[in-house]
Amino acid sequence: MANVLILILKSDATEPQIQHVIERVESLGFGAHLSRGTFRTIVGLIGDEQRLQSEPLSAIPGVAEVVPVMPPYKLASLDAHPQPSVVDVGGVPVGGGQLAMIAGPCAVEEPDRMLRIAKAVKAAGANIFRGGAYKPRTSPYSFQGLGEEGLKILRDVGDACGMPIVTEVTDPRNVETVAKYADLLQIGARNMQNFVLLTEAGQANKPVLLKRGMSATIVDWLMSAEYVLAQGNPNVILCERGIKSFDPSTRNLFDVAAVPVVKGLSHLPVIVDPSHATGKPALIPPCALAGVAAGADGVHIEVHDEPEVAKSDGPQALLPDQYAEVAQQIRQLAALLGKSIAPLPASKASG
Amino acid sequence: MANVLILILKSDATEPQIQHVIERVESLGFGAHLSRGTFRTIVGLIGDEQRLQSEPLSAIPGVAEVVPVMPPYKLASLDAHPQPSVVDVGGVPVGGGQLAMIAGPCAVEEPDRMLRIAKAVKAAGANIFRGGAYKPRTSPYSFQGLGEEGLKILRDVGDACGMPIVTEVTDPRNVETVAKYADLLQIGARNMQNFVLLTEAGQANKPVLLKRGMSATIVDWLMSAEYVLAQGNPNVILCERGIKSFDPSTRNLFDVAAVPVVKGLSHLPVIVDPSHATGKPALIPPCALAGVAAGADGVHIEVHDEPEVAKSDGPQALLPDQYAEVAQQIRQLAALLGKSIAPLPASKASG
Amino acid sequence: MANVLILILKSDATEPQIQHVIERVESLGFGAHLSRGTFRTIVGLIGDEQRLQSEPLSAIPGVAEVVPVMPPYKLASLDAHPQPSVVDVGGVPVGGGQLAMIAGPCAVEEPDRMLRIAKAVKAAGANIFRGGAYKPRTSPYSFQGLGEEGLKILRDVGDACGMPIVTEVTDPRNVETVAKYADLLQIGARNMQNFVLLTEAGQANKPVLLKRGMSATIVDWLMSAEYVLAQGNPNVILCERGIKSFDPSTRNLFDVAAVPVVKGLSHLPVIVDPSHATGKPALIPPCALAGVAAGADGVHIEVHDEPEVAKSDGPQALLPDQYAEVAQQIRQLAALLGKSIAPLPASKASG
Amino acid sequence: MANVLILILKSDATEPQIQHVIERVESLGFGAHLSRGTFRTIVGLIGDEQRLQSEPLSAIPGVAEVVPVMPPYKLASLDAHPQPSVVDVGGVPVGGGQLAMIAGPCAVEEPDRMLRIAKAVKAAGANIFRGGAYKPRTSPYSFQGLGEEGLKILRDVGDACGMPIVTEVTDPRNVETVAKYADLLQIGARNMQNFVLLTEAGQANKPVLLKRGMSATIVDWLMSAEYVLAQGNPNVILCERGIKSFDPSTRNLFDVAAVPVVKGLSHLPVIVDPSHATGKPALIPPCALAGVAAGADGVHIEVHDEPEVAKSDGPQALLPDQYAEVAQQIRQLAALLGKSIAPLPASKASG
Repeated sequence: MANVLILILKSDATEPQIQHVIERVESLGFGAHLSRGTFRTIVGLIGDEQRLQSEPLSAIPGVAEVVPVMPPYKLASLDAHPQPSVVDVGGVPVGGGQLAMIAGPCAVEEPDRMLRIAKAVKAAGANIFRGGAYKPRTSPYSFQGLGEEGLKILRDVGDACGMPIVTEVTDPRNVETVAKYADLLQIGARNMQNFVLLTEAGQANKPVLLKRGMSATIVDWLMSAEYVLAQGNPNVILCERGIKSFDPSTRNLFDVAAVPVVKGLSHLPVIVDPSHATGKPALIPPCALAGVAAGADGVHIEVHDEPEVAKSDGPQALLPDQYAEVAQQIRQLAALLGKSIAPLPASKASG
Repeated sequence: MANVLILILKSDATEPQIQHVIERVESLGFGAHLSRGTFRTIVGLIGDEQRLQSEPLSAIPGVAEVVPVMPPYKLASLDAHPQPSVVDVGGVPVGGGQLAMIAGPCAVEEPDRMLRIAKAVKAAGANIFRGGAYKPRTSPYSFQGLGEEGLKILRDVGDACGMPIVTEVTDPRNVETVAKYADLLQIGARNMQNFVLLTEAGQANKPVLLKRGMSATIVDWLMSAEYVLAQGNPNVILCERGIKSFDPSTRNLFDVAAVPVVKGLSHLPVIVDPSHATGKPALIPPCALAGVAAGADGVHIEVHDEPEVAKSDGPQALLPDQYAEVAQQIRQLAALLGKSIAPLPASKASG
Repeated sequence: MANVLILILKSDATEPQIQHVIERVESLGFGAHLSRGTFRTIVGLIGDEQRLQSEPLSAIPGVAEVVPVMPPYKLASLDAHPQPSVVDVGGVPVGGGQLAMIAGPCAVEEPDRMLRIAKAVKAAGANIFRGGAYKPRTSPYSFQGLGEEGLKILRDVGDACGMPIVTEVTDPRNVETVAKYADLLQIGARNMQNFVLLTEAGQANKPVLLKRGMSATIVDWLMSAEYVLAQGNPNVILCERGIKSFDPSTRNLFDVAAVPVVKGLSHLPVIVDPSHATGKPALIPPCALAGVAAGADGVHIEVHDEPEVAKSDGPQALLPDQYAEVAQQIRQLAALLGKSIAPLPASKASG
Repeated sequence: MANVLILILKSDATEPQIQHVIERVESLGFGAHLSRGTFRTIVGLIGDEQRLQSEPLSAIPGVAEVVPVMPPYKLASLDAHPQPSVVDVGGVPVGGGQLAMIAGPCAVEEPDRMLRIAKAVKAAGANIFRGGAYKPRTSPYSFQGLGEEGLKILRDVGDACGMPIVTEVTDPRNVETVAKYADLLQIGARNMQNFVLLTEAGQANKPVLLKRGMSATIVDWLMSAEYVLAQGNPNVILCERGIKSFDPSTRNLFDVAAVPVVKGLSHLPVIVDPSHATGKPALIPPCALAGVAAGADGVHIEVHDEPEVAKSDGPQALLPDQYAEVAQQIRQLAALLGKSIAPLPASKASG
């Protein structure tokens, strides 16, 4: 059995309070290991930590602080799965040295444009095509996406090019529909703690791309992955896309250190999205390379061939030529690190 | 017609780029008002700003910066409604000098305990009873709420005490069910940008309590209110409950200045939730008073009569006696400010 | 002797590593109290915690985490001084129920204007007059203050009005000079961790007003107070003036909860500065009241009679009439809380 | 002449207010270019922006917002110096494709250990040796550095190895002394807005390594560089070392995007310090590579041969072997990007 939690008691905790703490801990089925000092008494809890998640231990009178010893996520942890996971996205293996190269416009637009962009990013090295059919927009007056019509366009373009596709799902009622078309279900940053949606996505039979919330700690993020994993869906790819900070120089703050932090805690693949992290085309290539240098399992970049008329997020899109240039640099950097861009699925590569 | 937006061009913008900017702006149906300088050229856009929400103006070559002149929300703004709105919550008027006093446990628990707590907080001055039937928990292994059974308990307790009730809705599929039982629908901080849920709540015929997201700017928050208002539901109460910060001294960072900031931008009532903002019982009374002193239209406080066995968030609950004490101080402070605690509905006051 | 620190070892810590940890701890003169579990071993350190401040315990192989049990500050803590301290500022007692009302322009300007403003704020209830002679400005091209000439003006105006004065010191070489003129030495937010300056200020025979740094945790802040206290100067007043956050709605984020947090950790008086915290005149009165409601021992507000020509920070200054109005509200609120505005020194009140 | 600033007036600005704004602007020697709209009036200011730094324009009645068009820094900007600057550090050229490799322990310790570490990092590829003689410590009870004795040790070790040296200066009274020994003067993060110290450093005849403050925006940082440049010292190297954030996973938040942001605004070299940015040895190599991939002009890493007895920051030091490994990877990555590690000075290389 293990020390799973330490209670640090208040310096003025009374003897009856200490006894009550011990009784309370034991009533929960845990062993209590007491260590008294002049100023502070410490209680180590011994037992099965899973059962402690809901217990309000810090509300027990006399308790000053609760120090967890074990991480609160299980299935996402390296303890559960010491080797890096490789997630299959429509035939493209992501993780374990093989990089996802996700590219495409922010929103699904008309079929011709989509096909044109898909061919361009595929030629440049992209292996998963993206586009939003359901767009979570800050303003109710902004373009909200083409809906299922957009899913069909995206699927057709993916099939025509032999590329798996990824698209965002925003509504638990749409998970089944989106899963019918897409190879990879994206949960956006604003929905990272939409636990209802996570639970539905965990029950779909498609892998999930889980973006980090703008104010989520890395532990929060892994807990959200745990929601999907706990439903029996082991195929989660994490995506760092910038967090909130005080400097308006960039749209968000690209937390590149999150990549090696995650690698030290979890077996799940983790990719980076420098498009949303920075919001500025000039910053996307250097941050894409930074992400790969830090150990990311892939890069998500928005590409549009005419940003000034894009339906969504045009100002942060790379042009196809700019994408081709950074993709080439990523390929070289990957080689230096003993990695490579994941191959397209053989059966579809003819597309 | 109005200047609705200013484009600041790059210092090296070429003459053809400037011409292209003008053509592009005019093709969108806007007038362009050019002001040239040695270093920078500025273009003022004149027209109907509503139509600009989706246009990627900063993606036009030569544009350095886009400076909005008008706020992106309309219905939530003081321009749309210069007087403070008063929202009726099951007969309790919130806003315009009358304070909401929302109190109750984090999660709905067994009926006896709920009734006991409701009676205690009502006696102390609370006018809306709260309890969560659907709990968004960071961990999939934590207690997730009693669901519809919890709604029934809450309704029964509210009716027995003559208090309107508020409870959180987390799933767009449940909005109708929750609206059947509750007088006020809470949208939690983690769902503040769950636009699917906001849209559903906007179509329900019950007022909405919209908590501020942990990384939401005040403009983001008002834009989320706009989602509800744009569906035809004018009854939104905002709730400041702390934002993310770097100091672990408190669970979140209580942004008390948000209260007067909102008052300067919007007609919607805004209340404070010191329970979630601070996460520590000792900090709740001073922060509750601070919120009222800053002009809040009410206070949301979690109360439990046995925090150490609470199903959720026990460590941050006030005891009924502690609540009675702070409620009394709020009453005095309100009087000093020319305000008062909103009365319970007459028809129910006998309960 | 006391448990002063807990070491949580890595889950894969080897037996030789555990032995090495114990030897290392004992070689530092501490007792080691070992608690083994299946997954984790925990070591409690017993001894004099003061000696641990510099020891790199987390660098010992096998150590996963170091959990301090005692706060790192001593003289600033309630353990050292359980009753609230009252700091005498040129005859005005600050703390223990008596409020500092610090008011005046950002920078010292010409004598006539200074005298005019001083008389106005004194009439409104201010008991300490402020003005900056050495201004730390973000831009090297901005007005940097009048220097010693400004100190003289401030002293003369203070004497003429019978008010103690406070002014900022920014250079360790000037501490003696500033202490010659001022009754209270202000250390600004940007210098909160200028340990050289703190040490000099600790050796001056004047009380110190220590503003919180924009990215300082409350513990960092108390550690900076400890620098002053450790030099033998027990007279420190803390001042919350806003921290960095992501929302540009306000200049800084006013952390009103810092007031009760400090009260729970330290005996030092703590005041609030809503002028710098918000940067907008309309927000200053509500935030001043919020600070007092939360338990602050005073309020620092910038006042100027002609903000549009002020030498520094004009846009955030209150007009004398606006100050008089909020001062009156503070007086009433203080009475409600059983407090009062501290009286001016008797010998000077005739001024 | 140029549009240097835009004033956006309030929607309810009166005609007399508008006239007053124009008079005020003209009295400051600026031209006013008025653009009226139905909702908002905009005033463009034309003239020499340098003179505007201190003017409280937003305090003029009727002004809603002040939008600067030109950056507030001049000498640091690309306008002043369109080509990347190369800073000579004791014969080592930093910038323009040549990387600084700064390495050494946090604090200067005994001579033998210093020499041992210097030789090891030099063999691995380091070209500037570091060590702190004056340590700014959060706690007054921590080791504060060896002072001038430390400077001598550092100088001797640098001479013995033929490496230039860098050390921190914390006190304006010590700048001359530190400049006598060191080839590069470090201004630490906590002193980034210690304008007194910046001014002194600007008058020293040695280059300055300016670390970014923990809550400094990139514009704040460039303004602090401007303080040094404005004194006539053109040799400033910027160093990103992590900013404050809400996630305790890392000591600070490594803002790798700051590197390309700075490159787009300034000619000054910018290096990264993954040691302080992350605080954890396992994260230093991936973040060092990320920094170089993003375009940094060098890497600052703390190295100690016995971290568990280090006098300061032992827990975040790399061992010499770990440093050699990451230095080799940096060398390869630099080659891929068409850069190289800057050579040691020829005259000293024999050392």
